[in-house]
Amino acid sequence: MSGVDVYARQGFGGALRLAPPYGLLLIDFVNGFADPEAFGGGNIGPAIARSVDLLAFARQAGWPVAHSRIVFADDGANANIFAEKVPSLLALTEDSRGSQIVDALTPAPGEYVVRKTVPSAFFGTDLAAWYMARQIRTLVVAGCVTSGCVRASVVDAMCHGLRPVVVEDCVGDRAIAPHEANLFDMRQKNAEVMSLDDLLQVTAS
Amino acid sequence: MSGVDVYARQGFGGALRLAPPYGLLLIDFVNGFADPEAFGGGNIGPAIARSVDLLAFARQAGWPVAHSRIVFADDGANANIFAEKVPSLLALTEDSRGSQIVDALTPAPGEYVVRKTVPSAFFGTDLAAWYMARQIRTLVVAGCVTSGCVRASVVDAMCHGLRPVVVEDCVGDRAIAPHEANLFDMRQKNAEVMSLDDLLQVTAS
Amino acid sequence: MSGVDVYARQGFGGALRLAPPYGLLLIDFVNGFADPEAFGGGNIGPAIARSVDLLAFARQAGWPVAHSRIVFADDGANANIFAEKVPSLLALTEDSRGSQIVDALTPAPGEYVVRKTVPSAFFGTDLAAWYMARQIRTLVVAGCVTSGCVRASVVDAMCHGLRPVVVEDCVGDRAIAPHEANLFDMRQKNAEVMSLDDLLQVTAS
Amino acid sequence: MSGVDVYARQGFGGALRLAPPYGLLLIDFVNGFADPEAFGGGNIGPAIARSVDLLAFARQAGWPVAHSRIVFADDGANANIFAEKVPSLLALTEDSRGSQIVDALTPAPGEYVVRKTVPSAFFGTDLAAWYMARQIRTLVVAGCVTSGCVRASVVDAMCHGLRPVVVEDCVGDRAIAPHEANLFDMRQKNAEVMSLDDLLQVTAS
Repeated sequence: MSGVDVYARQGFGGALRLAPPYGLLLIDFVNGFADPEAFGGGNIGPAIARSVDLLAFARQAGWPVAHSRIVFADDGANANIFAEKVPSLLALTEDSRGSQIVDALTPAPGEYVVRKTVPSAFFGTDLAAWYMARQIRTLVVAGCVTSGCVRASVVDAMCHGLRPVVVEDCVGDRAIAPHEANLFDMRQKNAEVMSLDDLLQVTAS
Repeated sequence: MSGVDVYARQGFGGALRLAPPYGLLLIDFVNGFADPEAFGGGNIGPAIARSVDLLAFARQAGWPVAHSRIVFADDGANANIFAEKVPSLLALTEDSRGSQIVDALTPAPGEYVVRKTVPSAFFGTDLAAWYMARQIRTLVVAGCVTSGCVRASVVDAMCHGLRPVVVEDCVGDRAIAPHEANLFDMRQKNAEVMSLDDLLQVTAS
Repeated sequence: MSGVDVYARQGFGGALRLAPPYGLLLIDFVNGFADPEAFGGGNIGPAIARSVDLLAFARQAGWPVAHSRIVFADDGANANIFAEKVPSLLALTEDSRGSQIVDALTPAPGEYVVRKTVPSAFFGTDLAAWYMARQIRTLVVAGCVTSGCVRASVVDAMCHGLRPVVVEDCVGDRAIAPHEANLFDMRQKNAEVMSLDDLLQVTAS
Repeated sequence: MSGVDVYARQGFGGALRLAPPYGLLLIDFVNGFADPEAFGGGNIGPAIARSVDLLAFARQAGWPVAHSRIVFADDGANANIFAEKVPSLLALTEDSRGSQIVDALTPAPGEYVVRKTVPSAFFGTDLAAWYMARQIRTLVVAGCVTSGCVRASVVDAMCHGLRPVVVEDCVGDRAIAPHEANLFDMRQKNAEVMSLDDLLQVTAS
């Protein structure tokens, strides 16, 4: 983007030190966001495919893993401002097909599946406490969409005292321009942004 | 931005009903963010100038008004992940010139000046409770920067159950591309985005 | 209790102005807390019986109504410090009999049933946002147990900017001494405490 | 208290495993709460005296230390429901003598002094994030008053995923009956409660 060299000049975009213990958060990788006819499209499909490797790695490394889903009450009793802005979200109820985590990333026993009704997986949930109880220092983030629930969750993770790492090839959006714009913002102000290959190297060292 | 027609097709970008009671939030309009040599530049100056009119209107209308400032402890005791990412923020201490609200928008008695150490004016503060105690329904937002503290505060306002209105000519960023990209995201998913002129018409009706 | 006249002398125990809009919160009136062999006993039974009248009144008056339940994941993935302190709580899972709201107070469509894993119905939930979106000013509270989830929820309600009213004959505890001690604390520092009869008079005027 | 054997029978009052890293929180040990003519009295004086030893130990052990103070805006702009219930709290402003931490426990550089306007030191503050960033597992708590700000902070600490230890001889209240009643509640449901001598033994092992 043009004009953004001002960020570096003003001291933005510094590096975050990454260190164990690591935790993983997979955001809203559910059928509805995998489906281009529902909320999906763009590079979400490839992000899911790549996250299969990330999840396998995290499990092998013994990282605490959480998955988030958007789930509204069957009768819409907790419809909120987000749902007024995007009414189709109300179809994501506990047993709806659209709100189930995609088969490729099915949660294993002991992995926490957290329900939410807003973009951030931390807002109105006990997810921060869950990581606190496990002394997590660095939070590795994958999911969709980059410009919505990923961005909000990454900002909140940073605010809660976690060091967020956005895995660039494991996050996706229904359109590429917002994907890129939000990676820029997070890199400048909130997180490390790196490829899965680079992450594997960093965490192996 | 190209490729973003998918948002409308999937049901994003709906309108929010705006209704009283209204509240106002002015985000981080402090000397350090007004100064292009510090954290400022771009269209922040014009946003401040325009917000003078907005603030005058809100006061006349009797809206509750809050202002946010980034303030770190003098000894850096509460340095956080945000400050590790952007170390120059630590210079914004209680009595530093950079953290004082700009003269043109000096808070009046009874207006709440809330200190924060992260992007959102709601995170780690009692600001949501302050609006709750005043039964605010619609939160009018001005401030800087659009891609950082404004975006985070608007998302949180929505999550807290407030209807956010971003006043397009009263928010600014040090670079225009992130400004535009974040207005797009907020318009699609979190808020009404409108000019001050349009807001004055809406709230007068 | 002896020695507590110091509270009045130091300015504690003042009255809260109550005013509409009102909301209702019924805390943890589930089978497990109604059963003296599980988590119940004491005056919880009478509190449930009396809350039937309160709920009927709230519905007739059109107040927003929320009910809370303690619900842990089936596989214990979100077991927390509270559950380490009281392990038997982990039996309260989504479909367990113990975690279902008692028949006498079955939620009606549109009433919000909020899941939680800690004492307060506000912590780690979007309940405060739910009341904010409805401009609630005064929160009427019933439930169990007085010394645990009621106390924590009332303190949080106050912190969130709501005016809490504890309905004395609609809250109960498995033992009377903690019930009385916590009514004392809430009356001094957090809430109005009054009988259902008095509440009906206040809200009718 | 009579009738409370039901707690043990129902599975309450279990032990919490304590383990490093430890953090310390000193709650509201300010002049106003040390003064029996203001908000003090009871066993608060002895609790302060004993906390001098606790603080010295924590510093030597290198634990992160935070202190809380109640601080309202000079113009009362953030007066809240708590202050409506206890109006004399509004006198605790940034520079008032009553809101300064007692000389015996003056914060050292690098210790975090967190401002709050409600009972819990965690509500509306970034204190949980401060401990999260330091991977704290067990939070040692001293302060006053046991039945108010200590109780609320301990419950919140538990909810945030920390293991709270209430140091029995380092917490105090203006009246002994509420002090005892709240120690009972916290021991049953939220925390370990132990003497400073016992804590020193546990953490040394």
